[in-house]
Amino acid sequence: MNPRALRGVIAAAATPLGADLAPDVAGLVRHCRDLLRRGCDAVLCLGTTGEACSFSVEERLALVRGLGEAGLGPSLMLGIGSCAVPDAVRLARAALEVGAAHLLCLPPFYYKKVSDEGLRAAFSAVVEEVGDPRLRLYLYHIPQTSGVPLSRGLIERLHAAHPGAVVGVKDSAGDWSHTAALLREPGALSVFSGTEEHLLGSLRLGGPGCISAAFNIYPELGAELLAGWQAPGAEERQAALTGLRRILGRQPMVPAIKALLARRDGAPGWARVRPPLVALEADRVEGLVRELGQAGWSVGRQAQRTRSAGGGWA
Amino acid sequence: MNPRALRGVIAAAATPLGADLAPDVAGLVRHCRDLLRRGCDAVLCLGTTGEACSFSVEERLALVRGLGEAGLGPSLMLGIGSCAVPDAVRLARAALEVGAAHLLCLPPFYYKKVSDEGLRAAFSAVVEEVGDPRLRLYLYHIPQTSGVPLSRGLIERLHAAHPGAVVGVKDSAGDWSHTAALLREPGALSVFSGTEEHLLGSLRLGGPGCISAAFNIYPELGAELLAGWQAPGAEERQAALTGLRRILGRQPMVPAIKALLARRDGAPGWARVRPPLVALEADRVEGLVRELGQAGWSVGRQAQRTRSAGGGWA
Repeated sequence: MNPRALRGVIAAAATPLGADLAPDVAGLVRHCRDLLRRGCDAVLCLGTTGEACSFSVEERLALVRGLGEAGLGPSLMLGIGSCAVPDAVRLARAALEVGAAHLLCLPPFYYKKVSDEGLRAAFSAVVEEVGDPRLRLYLYHIPQTSGVPLSRGLIERLHAAHPGAVVGVKDSAGDWSHTAALLREPGALSVFSGTEEHLLGSLRLGGPGCISAAFNIYPELGAELLAGWQAPGAEERQAALTGLRRILGRQPMVPAIKALLARRDGAPGWARVRPPLVALEADRVEGLVRELGQAGWSVGRQAQRTRSAGGGWA
Repeated sequence: MNPRALRGVIAAAATPLGADLAPDVAGLVRHCRDLLRRGCDAVLCLGTTGEACSFSVEERLALVRGLGEAGLGPSLMLGIGSCAVPDAVRLARAALEVGAAHLLCLPPFYYKKVSDEGLRAAFSAVVEEVGDPRLRLYLYHIPQTSGVPLSRGLIERLHAAHPGAVVGVKDSAGDWSHTAALLREPGALSVFSGTEEHLLGSLRLGGPGCISAAFNIYPELGAELLAGWQAPGAEERQAALTGLRRILGRQPMVPAIKALLARRDGAPGWARVRPPLVALEADRVEGLVRELGQAGWSVGRQAQRTRSAGGGWA
């Protein structure tokens, strides 16, 4: 692990939207504070779950400033990924200005089947043009969405070229063999799993933790597993977390998470998504809540603590 | 065909870059004027060949204004595609302000496997938020790059919902059966092929023409085929154009086109590309020029007129 990098359980926060689908900065601030209070070590804002790429650059800058004004900068990881290097640089500078140094960067994702050399040049340009020693960049591997995988060779090359700045990876491909291979590499990269299914496995290989959408609803689950990962019951907690992920994973993730937040808070507005995403239909929400209930999960704020069915640890 | 839409041969212009990789607005203006003088009916700026998505929103806005100040607005199709609806709207408004009404719009391309309903909502939001009766929108189907195909049902639905604004399609998937099916649909959509391989076939099905990168170098070829598509020799001209495309298609298209422009103009700067693209290596440029030469193509400004080998029409 990299001593400059974050570690622990990080919620990939959803972004609440107003009736006009504009990002609700105050609502996101409240959501972040709640997640931190409930045990998240940090919150990722403006990632894939946060619908960052559906917001204009100006909207993303306004969100960064709003989170900063609320004093959240040091508690965040912030997504700055863009198809255009200058937009990523602009977002990175705005983030650093509000004390958010941990930045998650997609590869430029419009062109496909591009070379490692082209991707190296793009990431290096971001690091060099930002030119700030505070920068701690995490490379975002999510090929099923971005369409642009990051090879292990590329990751290694970027880390070697910018050992201070390139501190980690978010591996959201969902392929444990890839995550494990990255974790076994010698060197000081902090490789976060993008799914809670691999949290215990990652920790056992010396990984820093996990960044996941499910922690929007069930942050305590991750925090408890992290706290007790070497204690008895860790396997059981991981199995529960894996079961939860599999239920959620049968739905489109962002609309499902937002629908559950809407249900939990009695706030229908939470369910809004930006196109091209579509809000989950009411009957699918009911089905999801029912399926979670059958597995012992309620959608309240302390759901996992009162869990009784399904072999839990209530 | 839609009476509000463009028709003919449209070059998908490459964008010259300065030594700092900033777009060279004056250079693009010169290139557009040259292409129009040499027979293009219009020029597409800020498409895939134009590396639009590698430029920041601010850079794209500056290019739109620069082209407008040069009086080129009415002669252009302009790419406004973005993952974020508000960015596409902002680009569209800037284009309309400079008299460029023909706008090419990608689907939001970050999320994959999204629903037709989500894509419909995104395109409809662009049309409605622009809210300008001058708007003539072309839907950009280039799934091999965007990762987000536009189904025939979606295209039809958008045209029906916005018959004045949604006037056409750029079909760059390279699949003739798809282009032909779109051309055979009843209705008034202008379906441009994105490859010159399908120019003659498109015209025979009542299509408006073709938008292609090869016309950066060989615009007269398209203009001549268009002018004489019902005359003797049309098949032969199409075969020559198809052969040319196949040679170019063995290279990464944008770097290859820019390398040839650099060679033609004795201007090495033309070869620059933004990451994640990578300039073509010198030996590959030599190989490409040699292969073109063996097929009878020189890389001069009037190359196709002096063509002699390979069954041409010199």
